[in-house]
Amino acid sequence: MRNYLNCSTKGRRQGSALRYNSPMLTIDLNCDCGEGFGAWSMGDDAAVLPHVTSANVACGGHAGDPTVMRRTVRLCHDLGVTVGAHPGFPDLQGFGRRALPMAPEEIEASVLAQIGALYAVARAEGVELRHVKPHGALYNVAAITPAVAAAIARAVAAFSRDLVLVGLAGSQLIAAGQMAGLRVAHEAFADRGYAADGTLLARGTPGALILDPAANLAQALNIVAGHTLSPEGAYLPIAADTLCIHGDTPGAATRAAHLRRGLAEAGVTVTSFSRL
Amino acid sequence: MRNYLNCSTKGRRQGSALRYNSPMLTIDLNCDCGEGFGAWSMGDDAAVLPHVTSANVACGGHAGDPTVMRRTVRLCHDLGVTVGAHPGFPDLQGFGRRALPMAPEEIEASVLAQIGALYAVARAEGVELRHVKPHGALYNVAAITPAVAAAIARAVAAFSRDLVLVGLAGSQLIAAGQMAGLRVAHEAFADRGYAADGTLLARGTPGALILDPAANLAQALNIVAGHTLSPEGAYLPIAADTLCIHGDTPGAATRAAHLRRGLAEAGVTVTSFSRL
Amino acid sequence: MRNYLNCSTKGRRQGSALRYNSPMLTIDLNCDCGEGFGAWSMGDDAAVLPHVTSANVACGGHAGDPTVMRRTVRLCHDLGVTVGAHPGFPDLQGFGRRALPMAPEEIEASVLAQIGALYAVARAEGVELRHVKPHGALYNVAAITPAVAAAIARAVAAFSRDLVLVGLAGSQLIAAGQMAGLRVAHEAFADRGYAADGTLLARGTPGALILDPAANLAQALNIVAGHTLSPEGAYLPIAADTLCIHGDTPGAATRAAHLRRGLAEAGVTVTSFSRL
Amino acid sequence: MRNYLNCSTKGRRQGSALRYNSPMLTIDLNCDCGEGFGAWSMGDDAAVLPHVTSANVACGGHAGDPTVMRRTVRLCHDLGVTVGAHPGFPDLQGFGRRALPMAPEEIEASVLAQIGALYAVARAEGVELRHVKPHGALYNVAAITPAVAAAIARAVAAFSRDLVLVGLAGSQLIAAGQMAGLRVAHEAFADRGYAADGTLLARGTPGALILDPAANLAQALNIVAGHTLSPEGAYLPIAADTLCIHGDTPGAATRAAHLRRGLAEAGVTVTSFSRL
Repeated sequence: MRNYLNCSTKGRRQGSALRYNSPMLTIDLNCDCGEGFGAWSMGDDAAVLPHVTSANVACGGHAGDPTVMRRTVRLCHDLGVTVGAHPGFPDLQGFGRRALPMAPEEIEASVLAQIGALYAVARAEGVELRHVKPHGALYNVAAITPAVAAAIARAVAAFSRDLVLVGLAGSQLIAAGQMAGLRVAHEAFADRGYAADGTLLARGTPGALILDPAANLAQALNIVAGHTLSPEGAYLPIAADTLCIHGDTPGAATRAAHLRRGLAEAGVTVTSFSRL
Repeated sequence: MRNYLNCSTKGRRQGSALRYNSPMLTIDLNCDCGEGFGAWSMGDDAAVLPHVTSANVACGGHAGDPTVMRRTVRLCHDLGVTVGAHPGFPDLQGFGRRALPMAPEEIEASVLAQIGALYAVARAEGVELRHVKPHGALYNVAAITPAVAAAIARAVAAFSRDLVLVGLAGSQLIAAGQMAGLRVAHEAFADRGYAADGTLLARGTPGALILDPAANLAQALNIVAGHTLSPEGAYLPIAADTLCIHGDTPGAATRAAHLRRGLAEAGVTVTSFSRL
Repeated sequence: MRNYLNCSTKGRRQGSALRYNSPMLTIDLNCDCGEGFGAWSMGDDAAVLPHVTSANVACGGHAGDPTVMRRTVRLCHDLGVTVGAHPGFPDLQGFGRRALPMAPEEIEASVLAQIGALYAVARAEGVELRHVKPHGALYNVAAITPAVAAAIARAVAAFSRDLVLVGLAGSQLIAAGQMAGLRVAHEAFADRGYAADGTLLARGTPGALILDPAANLAQALNIVAGHTLSPEGAYLPIAADTLCIHGDTPGAATRAAHLRRGLAEAGVTVTSFSRL
Repeated sequence: MRNYLNCSTKGRRQGSALRYNSPMLTIDLNCDCGEGFGAWSMGDDAAVLPHVTSANVACGGHAGDPTVMRRTVRLCHDLGVTVGAHPGFPDLQGFGRRALPMAPEEIEASVLAQIGALYAVARAEGVELRHVKPHGALYNVAAITPAVAAAIARAVAAFSRDLVLVGLAGSQLIAAGQMAGLRVAHEAFADRGYAADGTLLARGTPGALILDPAANLAQALNIVAGHTLSPEGAYLPIAADTLCIHGDTPGAATRAAHLRRGLAEAGVTVTSFSRL
């Protein structure tokens, strides 16, 4: 799958731009969480969440049950992290990593139900949902498939026009969100290498994963400044509102802490995009 | 399980009373619907729903998936039937008829997530939820178990104080709803026989099921007038806001049509309790 | 998807041929069954099964739970219908009609587990499994995808070399079964139209569904004699061991009875392929 | 729940006794494994399994999917650990720890299907099932409920009379297995404290969990010698064929290694009960 960067930054900055309204550089850090189910857990939310500003909470589609959702929302609330929905293909066994052949209308209904489920649980905790970021295969399919992207954008817009839609920077999902009149947040990756054409390097390719904390921070600072570099050194313009922290890789919490501190020391304001 | 009638009608009529505000007799007719899942269907919603005033739509716990939910909400909307949530134990294989040993907090979270899922789907159809009626084993357990009843009432109240909580007339669930400050609707049955002590006759007992349309209507008219009769002729005071129409028994639609017409001919106003 | 007929009948008749060993014409009639789940049912097994000779029993993947399996096996046993496994993609919500993107190894393990589950239930009823026929999307994908076909054939062969593998006549699944040393049964359809190129007409195309009992029987007799006709009258050679009876269409039982009787009256021996 | 020790050892040692045929002391060590599901894992099978002689592999009821099952069976095979089925209530969200209100016939069918699923996967790996040990709530309910114990024993016996049924020492499940003519293995716990009346101390009670390796080994040696001690020092006769190693507690692998080595150094033969 090709994951396009948004190279034509001008157009998208009109209307729904979330960043660069002030001269000060700002970025959001987000991570997926609440991805356990029943007795099973995934990642260490309590260790990673303190370092991010936006949490994408699983909604029972690919992971998460109501009890896990509630515990996770409470944890986010205690840490002051803003909460968003993280809907995925309804596929526990596949953890949402398999692209189910669902019609756009089915995806729309499923995303609605997942957002609603988390909304209700969050409401009982006095927490408001601020954004929606699709999970796994749904995120990837939506990045390149206009009909799926539009279905997700319709679901979000029908639920609330106050929700920010998070998608791969410059992807079809972002475009669909803008068409639906939603605020959008472009997502980039500090821990994934970019190819010279602006797509993410496939896992397995040398340089695809950036696990070294210093390299991680360097790429994050570049992205915040508006570009990144391919392994060959090509300059790739990129405009991102949020960086994804993967919470389920070894050393995730340490890397997240290093990144957060490094950004702050470099004078970057780390804050939730939904607060801007 | 003992299903108590509410014989002390005075107390409960204060505060959250839904009926008898006018001298005209009124009643609501409700039925469960949207209880298919994927390729499977249950009952004939399209045949029964035209005769009721309140629809309890399954929310994905014991039945219903997002696509079924949306189709059902749309059908209710087209027919002018008010829509409520019908949460059950999260148990597709048992169709919510098995009492899962869940802690009250787990039940509360599950009911919240189910209400929210339906809420979101309904919202996309421009339909507002008006009530919540638990399903099957959850309804039965809540009728006699204060801690479960309170968990359900907490979930409903946390989601919205505008929702009416529907439970067995005079049951613990009604009491819990009143304690939580919710409007409640007492439910009675025109197609089930009542014992002399006011409880429902166990299935299998002679007179437990009233499938004859005329007997059905006669019992409904008695209930609307404030009482019912045991098979032995004992006079049992009862105050009900809504009568349950079982949609999955043979002849359900015909019986429902006969009941609705008979009530109207007797001068009873059939209207949704949530509209009062 | 293209569903190929097996036009080169000579090659395949060597080694694993199941039919035409005698000059008498014989055919098997099969239908899917046991496709309920919990409180939900699908089709009317009790009405259709008396007319077939082989039953494909759902195994809990796309439908069927252990209690449904056992009840269905017992029904088949009482009717003298031979029992086979009907594994599908593990996807209750999609009823196995969605092609899940699973690796061949995952499909192999899933098919094994499904066969085993039914085997155990059947064993407790004193019933032996005689064949395996994949369901829905798994059947369709296996018909044209060698890697998936091989995975299914590996699973069947690893479980028991005495099981007959049923697939679309002339498809990749048949080829994979033969390569694995299994006996195979070519399946054709009396109630589906064939195009001039030998593929099944897509649903929605005129002539795609043959619901008229007489037309049904006519096509069945042609297939038994070794050919079928396209709507335009093209002569298509076909060699089939079994005809599929769809049990979930209106009038299925009547059509099945008419077909069975008509075949017998025409002198065709209707018997299970697994008995040859 | 009361978990009874088997104090009347004489009766049960006739017929189906598995141990003490030779003067040499022997014991089996068993642990549950394969309890992941999809992307989720549980415990560290690879670290614990090398120290046991019998593995109870989850079968898809409370945990385990076909791919996990196959990987686990292969791991057991590589380590020379005998493989048995570990069926549980069909309840992924509850991890089999909730007692579902199922009829004995439903439990019987479910246990059959689970054994069969694992059997098929194991067969493809050239591995034979040697025993069945119910999981969690099913184990606990079967220990004290004759009808459930009999349903499980019927399922095991219907599948194969060569399977050993493992249950709590002296429990109803052991009695039901003996009545069904099965070989049985009495299970005891080196890491759980016993009360003076021979039942397991409830979790939370002081002494309920024995996590100290030395205390663990001491209790194991006592059990092998035919007794254990309550916290107050009461002497409790016990005859056990196998000790359960809990694999999901912190330090499980270290404790298991210490126990295995300590037993060997004390001259106890650690070997699978199914090999005797």
